[in-house]
Amino acid sequence: MDFAARLAAAAEATNRVMDQALQPSPAVPDRLLNATRYATLAGGKRFRPFLVIESAALFDAPADAAAAVAAAFECLHSYSLVHDDLPAMDDDDLRRGQPTVHKAYDEATAILVGDGLQALAFELITGDPVPSDVAGPLAHLLARASGNAGMVGGQYRDLNAIGLDAEGIRLMQAMKTGRLIAGACEAGAVLGRADAGARAALVRYGDLLGEAFQLADDLLDVEGTAEETGKRVGKDAGADKATLVGLIGPAAARARLAEIVAAAADTLAPFGDRASVLREASRFVADRRS
Amino acid sequence: MDFAARLAAAAEATNRVMDQALQPSPAVPDRLLNATRYATLAGGKRFRPFLVIESAALFDAPADAAAAVAAAFECLHSYSLVHDDLPAMDDDDLRRGQPTVHKAYDEATAILVGDGLQALAFELITGDPVPSDVAGPLAHLLARASGNAGMVGGQYRDLNAIGLDAEGIRLMQAMKTGRLIAGACEAGAVLGRADAGARAALVRYGDLLGEAFQLADDLLDVEGTAEETGKRVGKDAGADKATLVGLIGPAAARARLAEIVAAAADTLAPFGDRASVLREASRFVADRRS
Repeated sequence: MDFAARLAAAAEATNRVMDQALQPSPAVPDRLLNATRYATLAGGKRFRPFLVIESAALFDAPADAAAAVAAAFECLHSYSLVHDDLPAMDDDDLRRGQPTVHKAYDEATAILVGDGLQALAFELITGDPVPSDVAGPLAHLLARASGNAGMVGGQYRDLNAIGLDAEGIRLMQAMKTGRLIAGACEAGAVLGRADAGARAALVRYGDLLGEAFQLADDLLDVEGTAEETGKRVGKDAGADKATLVGLIGPAAARARLAEIVAAAADTLAPFGDRASVLREASRFVADRRS
Repeated sequence: MDFAARLAAAAEATNRVMDQALQPSPAVPDRLLNATRYATLAGGKRFRPFLVIESAALFDAPADAAAAVAAAFECLHSYSLVHDDLPAMDDDDLRRGQPTVHKAYDEATAILVGDGLQALAFELITGDPVPSDVAGPLAHLLARASGNAGMVGGQYRDLNAIGLDAEGIRLMQAMKTGRLIAGACEAGAVLGRADAGARAALVRYGDLLGEAFQLADDLLDVEGTAEETGKRVGKDAGADKATLVGLIGPAAARARLAEIVAAAADTLAPFGDRASVLREASRFVADRRS
């Protein structure tokens, strides 16, 4: 199977878990449920889930547990998008080509959708069929990647990013985007009961991928169109926000992306052919147009 | 030791864990850290932590693990207060006698403080010194109590509470407040590796306590002063919000509180004298003036 097919298969497995977790129940208000489904099931590449599932597959981890962990990472990611889009944060009206949650519903609902999705992420990562002895370590990993020293701290830095130098931007981006991407790769290794060396290699791969992801995102903001990306573009320059591409220029950014693809391949070398789809993933990220 | 001393001891053990978890580190932006400390370390009775610690003590669970789990519940509770106070939610300026986080800092920071505290709750409940085999189940319990079918769903119902009947109000309050209080009691049992019967008894006790907590809160909103409670009072009536006390009246509410204190004592009977401080806790909740 090639990369596109594997990405689609991971998305399908993840969506199935999320759809199942977001079925009507007597306690959950219908409109809150619908808003949560709108925030999570209306699209998205499911790239973090793909990383969980493919990393776990390197170690023959059970597919159903990998799908649950993958869905947890996607819930976490989705919550961050809903909150980042809020008027008090990035104030975005468009996400994946659709009105953002606070636009389609309202602000209070969007805050609660995000809060509930974060809780759901931890419910899924510690629930059936994730083996109970790895559930705690996986939840710990997810919590660290998404808290003040990870995604949340990165978003805080991003909101205050005006005037950052290249090092400051790299730290902000590593925290905001990189930690969760590296965490997805590491989670696959934990679920697969990988040894310390293999686990460290996947974290290193995830770090590289996270950097590539953000560079490509910045390039898209400079060079893409709203039609391609499904969200407002040019907003970083418009907001006078420091970005790495803004500082080093698109050519240097592209050169760094090529370096990353090569380094990712080196990092994955110990896994041989089994990691070929992860190698392709780094090229996909470097080349992405949406 | 009497109840007040035990409550103070639980608060001290909990504050120590939270203070330690919220020390400066290179990755965490200073202002975000300070806002998080402001949200968590500036007061509060630490009643949920007390329930975790005293429930765990019934089964001789290790005190350091109980303190970590207790701190997790307090982080979760604190995050909910910060988000509930936001302009798009209850729009409150005062909390524990101090400006709310979005007033003392700003709205974006308050959203991120809440998000980070939720992550920290799951980091603490799955981290050292919580035994790894109970970390997953504890995180699962916390996630379920705080998600769409628990606290978050309850807050959603509360925002849309106008016109609710008594049954609707009870469901809303059980979800918004009760689930986390019962979860704190249950978490103590899980940490203490209690058998199913003892665990169920503590959940039942927690359910009763949650109901008492909310009745007393409603009574305070009707009869208390801002000076006593440290927050704005009369806001439910002002917002035309349905409350149980509003529907059944203060006299019936007080009668129900007395019933609850008796039922809580019955529920705790199997634990004998060891549960005397938990018995006192139900009286404290029923009588509280702040």
